[in-house]
Amino acid sequence: MKNIYDQRNISMMMDLYELTMANGYFLEEEEKKRVAFDVFYRRNPDGGGFAVFAGLEQVLEYLEGMHFRPQDIEYLRSLGHFDERFLAYLQDFRFHGDVYAFPEGSVMYPGEPIITVVADLVEAQLIETELLAQINHQSLIATKACRIVRSAEGRSVSDFGARRAHNNDAATYGARACYIGGVGGTATVSAGLNFHIPVGGTMAHSWVMYYKDELDAFRRFAKRYPHNCILLVDTYDVLKSGVPHAIQVFQEMRAAGIQSQYFGIRLDSGDLAYLSLKARKMLDQAGFPEARIVVSNSLDEYTIRSILDQGGQIDAFGVGERMITARSEPVFGAVYKLCAVEEKGVMEPRIKISENIEKVTNPGIKTVYRLYNEVGHSIADLLTKKRESPEEIHYMVDPEKPWKKYSTQGLRFKEMQQLVMEGGRRLLEKEDIGLIRRRLEDQLQEEVWAEEQRFENPHRHYLDMSPAYYEMKMQLLREES
Amino acid sequence: MKNIYDQRNISMMMDLYELTMANGYFLEEEEKKRVAFDVFYRRNPDGGGFAVFAGLEQVLEYLEGMHFRPQDIEYLRSLGHFDERFLAYLQDFRFHGDVYAFPEGSVMYPGEPIITVVADLVEAQLIETELLAQINHQSLIATKACRIVRSAEGRSVSDFGARRAHNNDAATYGARACYIGGVGGTATVSAGLNFHIPVGGTMAHSWVMYYKDELDAFRRFAKRYPHNCILLVDTYDVLKSGVPHAIQVFQEMRAAGIQSQYFGIRLDSGDLAYLSLKARKMLDQAGFPEARIVVSNSLDEYTIRSILDQGGQIDAFGVGERMITARSEPVFGAVYKLCAVEEKGVMEPRIKISENIEKVTNPGIKTVYRLYNEVGHSIADLLTKKRESPEEIHYMVDPEKPWKKYSTQGLRFKEMQQLVMEGGRRLLEKEDIGLIRRRLEDQLQEEVWAEEQRFENPHRHYLDMSPAYYEMKMQLLREES
Repeated sequence: MKNIYDQRNISMMMDLYELTMANGYFLEEEEKKRVAFDVFYRRNPDGGGFAVFAGLEQVLEYLEGMHFRPQDIEYLRSLGHFDERFLAYLQDFRFHGDVYAFPEGSVMYPGEPIITVVADLVEAQLIETELLAQINHQSLIATKACRIVRSAEGRSVSDFGARRAHNNDAATYGARACYIGGVGGTATVSAGLNFHIPVGGTMAHSWVMYYKDELDAFRRFAKRYPHNCILLVDTYDVLKSGVPHAIQVFQEMRAAGIQSQYFGIRLDSGDLAYLSLKARKMLDQAGFPEARIVVSNSLDEYTIRSILDQGGQIDAFGVGERMITARSEPVFGAVYKLCAVEEKGVMEPRIKISENIEKVTNPGIKTVYRLYNEVGHSIADLLTKKRESPEEIHYMVDPEKPWKKYSTQGLRFKEMQQLVMEGGRRLLEKEDIGLIRRRLEDQLQEEVWAEEQRFENPHRHYLDMSPAYYEMKMQLLREES
Repeated sequence: MKNIYDQRNISMMMDLYELTMANGYFLEEEEKKRVAFDVFYRRNPDGGGFAVFAGLEQVLEYLEGMHFRPQDIEYLRSLGHFDERFLAYLQDFRFHGDVYAFPEGSVMYPGEPIITVVADLVEAQLIETELLAQINHQSLIATKACRIVRSAEGRSVSDFGARRAHNNDAATYGARACYIGGVGGTATVSAGLNFHIPVGGTMAHSWVMYYKDELDAFRRFAKRYPHNCILLVDTYDVLKSGVPHAIQVFQEMRAAGIQSQYFGIRLDSGDLAYLSLKARKMLDQAGFPEARIVVSNSLDEYTIRSILDQGGQIDAFGVGERMITARSEPVFGAVYKLCAVEEKGVMEPRIKISENIEKVTNPGIKTVYRLYNEVGHSIADLLTKKRESPEEIHYMVDPEKPWKKYSTQGLRFKEMQQLVMEGGRRLLEKEDIGLIRRRLEDQLQEEVWAEEQRFENPHRHYLDMSPAYYEMKMQLLREES
């Protein structure tokens, strides 16, 4: 491999311990046993009321394509701790498991299994790292983008983050996640190319500095891009030079018959609330009330809200580093935990006890329902034993207040996980990204309480249990401790 | 493209405005003009005294391999705003510029040009985004890793972060950056494969949970890995179950003649200081003073210091999300600014004024010197006009206190930038990563004051100017404002 940029196989993007354990299982177990692992997360980022599930498409592509090349096997051999029989097995490795998952773009809550993998032990173990990395990254960014978009109250938001992203994939898949989260477009060309996301981009300071004379630079840009003429006005002095020069060029363009709905300015430094107010007034007085004002520079949901609270006159936000890195909380903590092991043909539940109470896992293969009231609001999510049907469940248990009972009467049940891959073959075709994006939008408009969408102290969504499931978990806890 | 995982060309990882401007330059400029851009950053992350330069190798690989495939051109054509002559130019595009850069692994400081690109205008513009993304990401992680390694005071530190990294590249190149920053190894196999970094990894909770009986799980692992037997002891109860079971297995292994220097335990939850003290005592009393204690779980330079301050008995730290995402400050803000434009064969300086004083750029093509005192400590960095020789410079100007003069007598000058690419051809061969890593280590041991390496209120390294350079900048500022 001369250059790992052009050629790569992400199958080796895994923690070594996956291979260490897999080699051990391979040698220890005489027959293949099926196991189940859940993917879930423990806490919403930024103190929010929910998170957004993203990255499923890339997980399925990975699972379908996963394989080890001769050079991968050779490298593993060189480490000196893998058995040759295991290496021979890896040579023909393919993933043959079943995958159940929430639809991509779903609102999700802590503690519930977003994805469940049922597969042979070795296969299920080997996929852990990449599956988590993909879901953690894209869900993190989609969740952050969704917050930022909501803070903009209907104004356009674009992703400008590529240069501050954590390398190429973070820029490209991050732009995808931003789009799922509700952003209108991205500056990142690779994301436009690969995911059919709208792309946009006009000029940097270098354009203005290259021509030295700001007016000349603006005129040349206007000549080339009369129908997307957003002029960057802060290279020298926004109010004394940038905006007056922009207005002069807009007047010349109008005189040449170009419609002014294509005109606009961008502010990239200074006090954006103040400067946008002043610039708006200047543009209006010059006869360009339809010229757009775009701002960028250290934006996130907090600065956007503050700018709007101060009456900032803004049509569109270009959001960079704070969205593409989820800067205020750049870690999404989804984990992959063993929940069941096949014993004599039956999937037996497994539980992990922990010194940290919130790290105790939910054992067994579960069904996750979302429960809706008569007007369609989602009022709780519910864990049940596999294939408990809604008709059997008359009330639900809040595991934090198990002495209380909540009736399920009149509630509509929706099963959240779908079988998306069976025996290693995709059942879910690649979804249109616009569809994934609308799925989230619809949930936020129709299903999720406003109280859960609040930024400060949002309402906590209940994750309840069916009585049978709760009893099974308590039984296991008693046995283990 | 069925699957962008397996095949990719990162040449399209750029902001659209690079192409919008490039298309404009291409059409506006009758003859090719050369320009110079500087890469520099403005502030050390986490309030530190310096940062670590990383990512140069990938920048050079990118610049050498950059090209546009037919499907890339087709996509750009579909956007409808590029001229056909420009698209034809892109079809044969290669980067032909010169690149000057600090050696990778260098200690660096705010405001100085780490990289300078001298190239035709269009070429120099098109490379901006990828160059910044790569340097920003790897420098961010190398700088964070360097802090974490220093906090461990000689104990081993490993990167365990892949699953929380911002996607594949962040895990793989992040592991590379961690290694440059001083980490001893990584769990990430793709980084071991591609960069020849030591890899390590033993077991997750799933190993213990799969076998249900903890003692059985430990025994099976010990049988397979007698020479790397690190047992994870916190699946059920660390002190009542995990450590006693580990000791029992160690006794059995010793009885079988296996040397106990290969034994160890890992703690991944709970109060790591307290548990490590207790576990150390139990291991010692059982006759295993050489068994190692490895800890993981939410570690960074602050928690490591706190654990060590409390007397935690730790041999090795596995550091995950807080290093691989640089969680406390996940953005490295390097920028790429036009500093000179060729006019009649001469590179004329350009400056960017800004509403924010710290955003005013340093104009012109510069030479950067690092200045050392007689015992080899680096006492300041110095910007001069291109090719001012040390002999001509008798004193230096602190641009924040220009009324003061500092003599350069007796100081040794080292030129920091080297010509690493000329006419698009690499002059710097791919460096051994161990060499890059030692370069940093040597600087920290021999050149950088302890006061600059402090975590709290470190000494600020001076970035001074030669009198001639300072005068040129002041002259330009007077002209522009």
